[in-house]
Amino acid sequence: MSAPTATAPFTGLSALLDDVGRDVAEIDVRPPSGETAVFGHDAGTAPRHGSPLADGPAVAFPTTVAEVQRLVRLAARHGVSVVPRGAGSGLSGGAVATSDQLVVSTERLNRIVEISPADEVAVVEPGVLNAALNDRLAPLGLFYAPDPASWRISTIGGNIATNAGGLRCAKYGVTRESVLALDVVLADGSLVSVGHRSIKGVTGLDLVSLFVGSEGVLGIVVGATVRIRPLPVARRTVTAFFDSTAAGAAAIGAITASRVRPSVIEFLDQPTLEGIDAAQRSGLRARGAALLLIELDGFGIDEQTAELTAALEAAGARVRVESDTDAEVLWELRRSGRRFDEGSWYAGGDIAVPKSRIAEIFASFPTIEARHGVALSAVAHAGDGNLHPVVTLPIPAGADPAVVPAALHDAADDLVRAALAVGGTVSGEHGIGTVKRALAAEELAARVRSAQFAVKDALDPSGLFNPGKAL
Amino acid sequence: MSAPTATAPFTGLSALLDDVGRDVAEIDVRPPSGETAVFGHDAGTAPRHGSPLADGPAVAFPTTVAEVQRLVRLAARHGVSVVPRGAGSGLSGGAVATSDQLVVSTERLNRIVEISPADEVAVVEPGVLNAALNDRLAPLGLFYAPDPASWRISTIGGNIATNAGGLRCAKYGVTRESVLALDVVLADGSLVSVGHRSIKGVTGLDLVSLFVGSEGVLGIVVGATVRIRPLPVARRTVTAFFDSTAAGAAAIGAITASRVRPSVIEFLDQPTLEGIDAAQRSGLRARGAALLLIELDGFGIDEQTAELTAALEAAGARVRVESDTDAEVLWELRRSGRRFDEGSWYAGGDIAVPKSRIAEIFASFPTIEARHGVALSAVAHAGDGNLHPVVTLPIPAGADPAVVPAALHDAADDLVRAALAVGGTVSGEHGIGTVKRALAAEELAARVRSAQFAVKDALDPSGLFNPGKAL
Repeated sequence: MSAPTATAPFTGLSALLDDVGRDVAEIDVRPPSGETAVFGHDAGTAPRHGSPLADGPAVAFPTTVAEVQRLVRLAARHGVSVVPRGAGSGLSGGAVATSDQLVVSTERLNRIVEISPADEVAVVEPGVLNAALNDRLAPLGLFYAPDPASWRISTIGGNIATNAGGLRCAKYGVTRESVLALDVVLADGSLVSVGHRSIKGVTGLDLVSLFVGSEGVLGIVVGATVRIRPLPVARRTVTAFFDSTAAGAAAIGAITASRVRPSVIEFLDQPTLEGIDAAQRSGLRARGAALLLIELDGFGIDEQTAELTAALEAAGARVRVESDTDAEVLWELRRSGRRFDEGSWYAGGDIAVPKSRIAEIFASFPTIEARHGVALSAVAHAGDGNLHPVVTLPIPAGADPAVVPAALHDAADDLVRAALAVGGTVSGEHGIGTVKRALAAEELAARVRSAQFAVKDALDPSGLFNPGKAL
Repeated sequence: MSAPTATAPFTGLSALLDDVGRDVAEIDVRPPSGETAVFGHDAGTAPRHGSPLADGPAVAFPTTVAEVQRLVRLAARHGVSVVPRGAGSGLSGGAVATSDQLVVSTERLNRIVEISPADEVAVVEPGVLNAALNDRLAPLGLFYAPDPASWRISTIGGNIATNAGGLRCAKYGVTRESVLALDVVLADGSLVSVGHRSIKGVTGLDLVSLFVGSEGVLGIVVGATVRIRPLPVARRTVTAFFDSTAAGAAAIGAITASRVRPSVIEFLDQPTLEGIDAAQRSGLRARGAALLLIELDGFGIDEQTAELTAALEAAGARVRVESDTDAEVLWELRRSGRRFDEGSWYAGGDIAVPKSRIAEIFASFPTIEARHGVALSAVAHAGDGNLHPVVTLPIPAGADPAVVPAALHDAADDLVRAALAVGGTVSGEHGIGTVKRALAAEELAARVRSAQFAVKDALDPSGLFNPGKAL
């Protein structure tokens, strides 16, 4: 515990830090300072282009559930709002905090408590990295299915807070489908255990699902029982290249019409392939103008491959079963291949649409590009209708990089409206946070929003947790 | 609309029926009478052994969402509580209603609004039977996965209200995993649409999951967008017979330890096999003292069969791949084979436990039988740890069948406590209703219950919907 300093300007927070120092000095708590500034942002809201950072929030690093409870009770007593934080890898501002707030970091609550192959569950603390859990499971022939692109750096707790998606969701479900039970510290500091150590269980309202995806506005997840599965007996990567983005997008429906359900279906449009080639000196564009990068898994991998290949070839694709070596390269290119350099402004998106409307979204790009003078591209998790469009604009010589033109965000907003127009949603997997609250208000009816606020108020009547987020 | 009669003794309900007759006479509403008595109970709480029925509730049969809204608003105005009802096939009293209440039946809201193979969704009204949806999907090569044993007679809306399970849940998930979006009439009569027409979507709190399994205490589901899937390319039934219940229960772990995940794993103990044989003149017991009745599906059915067979044989089973004809007979025996005649009292259970503890539950039967002088048997959905124990006791000559001995329910309660003792739950898939509220209170901590009530109050502050159920 560092002593509070004069830089803590808010009475409530100063008093809270005094109390922590006196009563629970074993908890590591940092007062607001320039050094905690990094805890004021997440990966989606960190200032770019060298903007100076303001003082950050106070940050606590509890190592036990009891410490989390103590912190929450003290914060409640002093009227200091609490911002739960995992790895800070979120993209929607869900962990943004100001210098009058207390961030409760879960990074030292990082124990894998139990792995039970017989019950097909793992019990973890929230700060366990997604990758760390899978590293422990793999030698046992098991895996934890939710695989957000951030899986190497994001925590299970953060994944739960955002109901994180990923690549494998169409087959294995989003995070919610893998969470069986939770321990949660509520706004009064009490600890509740909800859910079951079995797939089934219907005792009262489903509070587990309510906490999953609640972005820290209802409580702090301090423990989770998650579902684990046997690793597939086989995995195979299949590529399908097309002569145009439109042809590739149209072919997604051919997979749906088949009986094959790949574990992963990633669609990369022409600018994405060109961007990856430019950054990585790869040669994807030479093979086509759009790519469906597909992973099959499970039993009958040859049968699956044959049916998938037939469906894709009928849709005009050039199909190849990739070697394990080539497959590894392709997936690495997909995950981290494209780079957005300092020479451009960019804005990312996270819309989801009904599967059959994916092609329409790609078809809307030229109009939006022309309207705002920007460039658009997207990768889609095609199996579940989730697109990640990127809006880019070169920074002209002499322009201040910190002054982002409105065109960038206007184009991103137009994409969201294009998604809403076809029955889609503002956020497929990143969450609302601070960044998408206005757009969420366009998606949700007033009565739905009021119902969400009523539930929030029911569990956190004084608005202690993560105010101004998600809702 | 029938006119209210003198048999409606409660001022609020009489006034409500007057208003309906005057303002919305197109809605078919029956006042309380002996003829509505059947709407006062569900399949789990209907009086047995010829008990006389008291007057039932008032019952409305709206045919449109707007009519549901009108009914709810009128009920709220007159302080009459509303009991939503599907097919009445529930087993926990979730649809029980008294003569001062208004039952809103969804049976005439039974349209299949849309089937979209391209989006892999169906849009249905709540009164659509589970079987009716699957009858429409099958010719398209599609199916709706949740398969409660009541699927021929239960509605999708009722399945949603109870988060119904079934046989295929370990592979395909419970009802919640197949519900993407809902239209719900809230306690103020407003209609809200929550959720998305895509697998992903994280815009605010997950109210869809909150309504699923809420047993009608938060609102009336009037529309649902559910996930549909391609029918498996192959299905195969495998039987594994064992020399004892204990040997069979122990072998469940051998499937878990393999890489095969059957679509269905039903475990039938020795008394269940004997009961089926007695009722159906089948010959199951001659093949063994316990049975794992397994369905595999999907690609690579031969590979799956080989791996499963090896795992089961190593666990001491006599394994056979059944012909399609024999398989059909076996599944019919499983679903409806055992009969409980009028000569016995019986009580059914619905506990769920961690998969690895199933054998312990079966092992606890002799002690509980000896303690209460009853007979116990159970079928288990072994893939997800859900057991349906049955407690039976012959009715002695001259005894009043309507006076059920306490031993019956005491034994059932002991089974629930045995489940709780190994980390299980009071109800795997039937719900709490009126029947299991006391036991649910044993499972859930006081703070969890208060959180559930707070959420209930947030969405239904005057307690309009289904009072005294679920929570």
